[in-house]
Amino acid sequence: MLVGKPIPSHLAHHERYSRASGLAILSSDALSSVAYATEEILRTLLIAGTASLWLVTPIGSVIAGLMLVIAFSYRQTIHAYPGGGGAYRVARENLGTIPGLVAASALLLDYVLTVAVSIAAGVAAVTSAFPQWHVKSVELALAFLVLIAVGNLRGIRESGRIFAVPTFFFLGSMGMLLLVGAYKALTGQIVPIESAAAAFVPPETAPLTLFLVLRAFANGCTALTGIEAISDGVPAFKPPEAKNAATTLMIMAACAVTLFMGVTLLAGAYQVIPRQEETVISQLNRAILGGRGPFYYMVQASTTMILVLAANTAFSDFPRLASIIARDKFLPRQLANQGDRLAFSNGIVILSLLAGVLLVVFGGDTHALIPLYMLGVFVSFTLSQLGMVLKWRRERRPGWLGGALVNGIGATLTLIVLFVVAITKFTEGAWIIIVLIPVLVFHFLAIHRHYGRVAEQLSLKDLSATDKRHNTVVVPIGGVHRAVVQALEYARTLSDDVRAVYVDVDPHATQEIRELWTQWGKGIRLEILASPFRSVMEPLLEYIEITNDERPDDFVTVLLPEFVPARWWHHLLHNQRALLIKGALLFKPNVVVTSVPYHLRD
Amino acid sequence: MLVGKPIPSHLAHHERYSRASGLAILSSDALSSVAYATEEILRTLLIAGTASLWLVTPIGSVIAGLMLVIAFSYRQTIHAYPGGGGAYRVARENLGTIPGLVAASALLLDYVLTVAVSIAAGVAAVTSAFPQWHVKSVELALAFLVLIAVGNLRGIRESGRIFAVPTFFFLGSMGMLLLVGAYKALTGQIVPIESAAAAFVPPETAPLTLFLVLRAFANGCTALTGIEAISDGVPAFKPPEAKNAATTLMIMAACAVTLFMGVTLLAGAYQVIPRQEETVISQLNRAILGGRGPFYYMVQASTTMILVLAANTAFSDFPRLASIIARDKFLPRQLANQGDRLAFSNGIVILSLLAGVLLVVFGGDTHALIPLYMLGVFVSFTLSQLGMVLKWRRERRPGWLGGALVNGIGATLTLIVLFVVAITKFTEGAWIIIVLIPVLVFHFLAIHRHYGRVAEQLSLKDLSATDKRHNTVVVPIGGVHRAVVQALEYARTLSDDVRAVYVDVDPHATQEIRELWTQWGKGIRLEILASPFRSVMEPLLEYIEITNDERPDDFVTVLLPEFVPARWWHHLLHNQRALLIKGALLFKPNVVVTSVPYHLRD
Repeated sequence: MLVGKPIPSHLAHHERYSRASGLAILSSDALSSVAYATEEILRTLLIAGTASLWLVTPIGSVIAGLMLVIAFSYRQTIHAYPGGGGAYRVARENLGTIPGLVAASALLLDYVLTVAVSIAAGVAAVTSAFPQWHVKSVELALAFLVLIAVGNLRGIRESGRIFAVPTFFFLGSMGMLLLVGAYKALTGQIVPIESAAAAFVPPETAPLTLFLVLRAFANGCTALTGIEAISDGVPAFKPPEAKNAATTLMIMAACAVTLFMGVTLLAGAYQVIPRQEETVISQLNRAILGGRGPFYYMVQASTTMILVLAANTAFSDFPRLASIIARDKFLPRQLANQGDRLAFSNGIVILSLLAGVLLVVFGGDTHALIPLYMLGVFVSFTLSQLGMVLKWRRERRPGWLGGALVNGIGATLTLIVLFVVAITKFTEGAWIIIVLIPVLVFHFLAIHRHYGRVAEQLSLKDLSATDKRHNTVVVPIGGVHRAVVQALEYARTLSDDVRAVYVDVDPHATQEIRELWTQWGKGIRLEILASPFRSVMEPLLEYIEITNDERPDDFVTVLLPEFVPARWWHHLLHNQRALLIKGALLFKPNVVVTSVPYHLRD
Repeated sequence: MLVGKPIPSHLAHHERYSRASGLAILSSDALSSVAYATEEILRTLLIAGTASLWLVTPIGSVIAGLMLVIAFSYRQTIHAYPGGGGAYRVARENLGTIPGLVAASALLLDYVLTVAVSIAAGVAAVTSAFPQWHVKSVELALAFLVLIAVGNLRGIRESGRIFAVPTFFFLGSMGMLLLVGAYKALTGQIVPIESAAAAFVPPETAPLTLFLVLRAFANGCTALTGIEAISDGVPAFKPPEAKNAATTLMIMAACAVTLFMGVTLLAGAYQVIPRQEETVISQLNRAILGGRGPFYYMVQASTTMILVLAANTAFSDFPRLASIIARDKFLPRQLANQGDRLAFSNGIVILSLLAGVLLVVFGGDTHALIPLYMLGVFVSFTLSQLGMVLKWRRERRPGWLGGALVNGIGATLTLIVLFVVAITKFTEGAWIIIVLIPVLVFHFLAIHRHYGRVAEQLSLKDLSATDKRHNTVVVPIGGVHRAVVQALEYARTLSDDVRAVYVDVDPHATQEIRELWTQWGKGIRLEILASPFRSVMEPLLEYIEITNDERPDDFVTVLLPEFVPARWWHHLLHNQRALLIKGALLFKPNVVVTSVPYHLRD
């Protein structure tokens, strides 16, 4: 019920994106960061006092420029990898396995953070509109998370087309807001913002250093997240896939730059000061619309919706990337088969749990999560574009120098941002990602090595065919009852060499067994084992050992009647000995232990 | 290595007790309570100020009288139950199942508390001698606990005879101390005790109410614990068992009364005031011997030793009682076979964990644990003696009236103490036991009911013999490699009707399998299942279902090649699908799922 209907293979190709639906579905991550990017710049600048807030405009402009450069760089990736050019693939093909795995780790961490940050920001949009809910931020965030997770487990992605709604709703309502805001600003109708909430001014104002400006810049670069989404999803577009995807990317970049610069410029014009309990967008929204009217709530709702949608995209990206990595044997193979609902569900559950932990640990606060978010994003940006540069150089196709230059500039700029983020945000959480990436890469490699060794051991090389082997069936019994009779019936189907084994710990009980055996033994040999130490296990294991040694190349099957109880706690009352026997025989070659289930009614 | 050598059955009877060794081994619990019983009375009286401490002598005398009554009462139990008359057995036989189970619960809880209280008191004896260790009481207690538990797991009980040493050492050194103390007291050489430690006087002294005197009495009754030990162990004595046991009980009672009254009288004479960091025995010891000399340390050492020994006896009593209850099918049957080291080890581990929790929760403080201890003891006392009364009345053998009277007086007195304890100690922890006893009884009954229902279902009544049944072997494969080839070899030994099954999720891979099959298929039929939804599980389970329906009365065996990895974490990388298949097929009748192990080197 939770998992929903599977998708037949033959339908998978029908759901191709037009430019409009591609834009709607793949750009939510990139566009939604408009909801918090400007605020992140302002919050950092505020450390040096309100007088330094004017810097938001120049910093925002640099970031907008950077966004265009990266968009052009990724446009080339789309054409080079019409089959989908995720950072993992591009880095692995052009830079080697380790850089590929670094990109993969960065991306997986990124998806987790996309979920956490987007939900946190979505909740902030809600609590800005309804300040009384601010104290319940974490609970609200977890509620959103559970909603999205369950939706995905139920298979919400099947109805992809409805995702077009929030994106266009956001573009429309945000665009309108910015137009009205710009009109009022240009016609001198700006009214100062009233707010009961406290601003984020620290008790002592710090000096405006270059480091602080760089930190503000680093925080603002969160506007750049999500640009790569379209290049990952090229094959999902209608043909000509690459061309459509590239055009969509350009439209998206244009929208993102417009919205981000619009918010940034108006935040400057309306002199928005970041506050504890209300987002910058909400303040701007109120200032422009003159209070909390219907249109105000609509803008807030559209912001929440696109942020939830952004979180939702990570829920299909994470299992997909995990399955690609698993198919390359760097992750457990049960994640590889995307067709199995289970592989997909595993991914969703892992992603939800990790995002949930982040939301709780960081108190559902967007600002606290940003330092972790940025690092992974820029690691994958840099590796992906660096890979493109090497690809141009290797292939030397016509015009490669220009192409390499575009990607090279992109790579250099993102590398610089990466360093700025790593240095300015190190103590605020970026170190977690710096530690986690090598840890993940190490595990990827260990898994890969293991699968390699297993493949070697399983190779059919030098394996010679054998004759049909003998199978001795041993049935340890603790009494004669229906479950034992059933196990004996089963034993007789397996082999002509069946031996029931009973350990004598009490002469009376043994005599009783002997008598019952004449009626129920079905002609099967009954071995009574002496037990001087009153132990049941030791004589039994010894007997199996001896039986196995009789014919070293043949099989010994140990049949254990196993009760399948109707209630879980009844397990504690049964099968303990069977479990012990299984454990003791697990490492014996050519010994197969089989449980013959006997179903109890209650 | 931890568990030691098992004991052969034919040796078990050789270790019979003489009166002396019986006394030494079975009386540690009863004698060791001398170490804290007087102190418990004094601590309660101190609540009403030092002026009320004189009451220790009358209260102690009542308790000593009670001890003699109970001893005479149990003397009769020994003669009536020469095969061992534990409270569980006596109550169950004479009063019925529920009272028997109440006694059993009380006893099991008691053993846990014997361990906790004895260790806590043993640690107090150590920290009284070495006050600097007082802050580490809990750690010391846990160290003792681990020592005893590991000793028992290793099989320390095999060398039972060395346990005679601590008991006689304690009797000797304590007797000497009391003699010297009495001599000094009678000759007027008493010197006031100096102590840096604070007395337990509460900030405001309470009035000396009857309730307080009853509380002091209830606490002092801890001196009575352990009297029943000999009546439980009658068959372990040399013949004539009952006579030897009865004599030993009388000797023990005499010793216990002498020591307890000796300590109580001298504590009064030397005006000992209970203190936070030094036991009453240690203060008395110092006062009599004039400071911490070699003999002082010897007395403290002997006290610690007998307390540790008392804790140790619970380690053989607990698993023994559990096995008796399990044989009556009120506890999981894996506890029943005492011969198996494992049943015994389970008991020891459970006992140690529970005692460890108590020691930590109650801060390793004897005084805090006493309220929990007493209740169980007096429940089993009362039920056991009440059972004896009914037995006398039922059997009406010569002299039954006198016998019933002795047991009746015992039962009445212990019932009164039980009420006094339950009322005065309720809020201090006795409520925990009052809650736990019915909870345990409820579980005993539920387990019993379940085993009864299972026995019905397993009954051979109306079971008719069947012909040899057919067995269809299904081998799901995910490729062709050594583990699969081995599984096919094994499959061929089981049946002539073997079918390998492969789910087609990728036409290329399927073609490859078909080609390999011509070489490695061993003539076994290969079924290729279509999977429109790219799922592996669903077509497979459907195929097994259909195969099972072909011959509803016959068996279907599903063989799964299973990797046995060399390192535990490799489990995460394998066999996930096998686990799912097993889970999905667990409740299907006549379907047996077998893992054919393939051992990986690394």
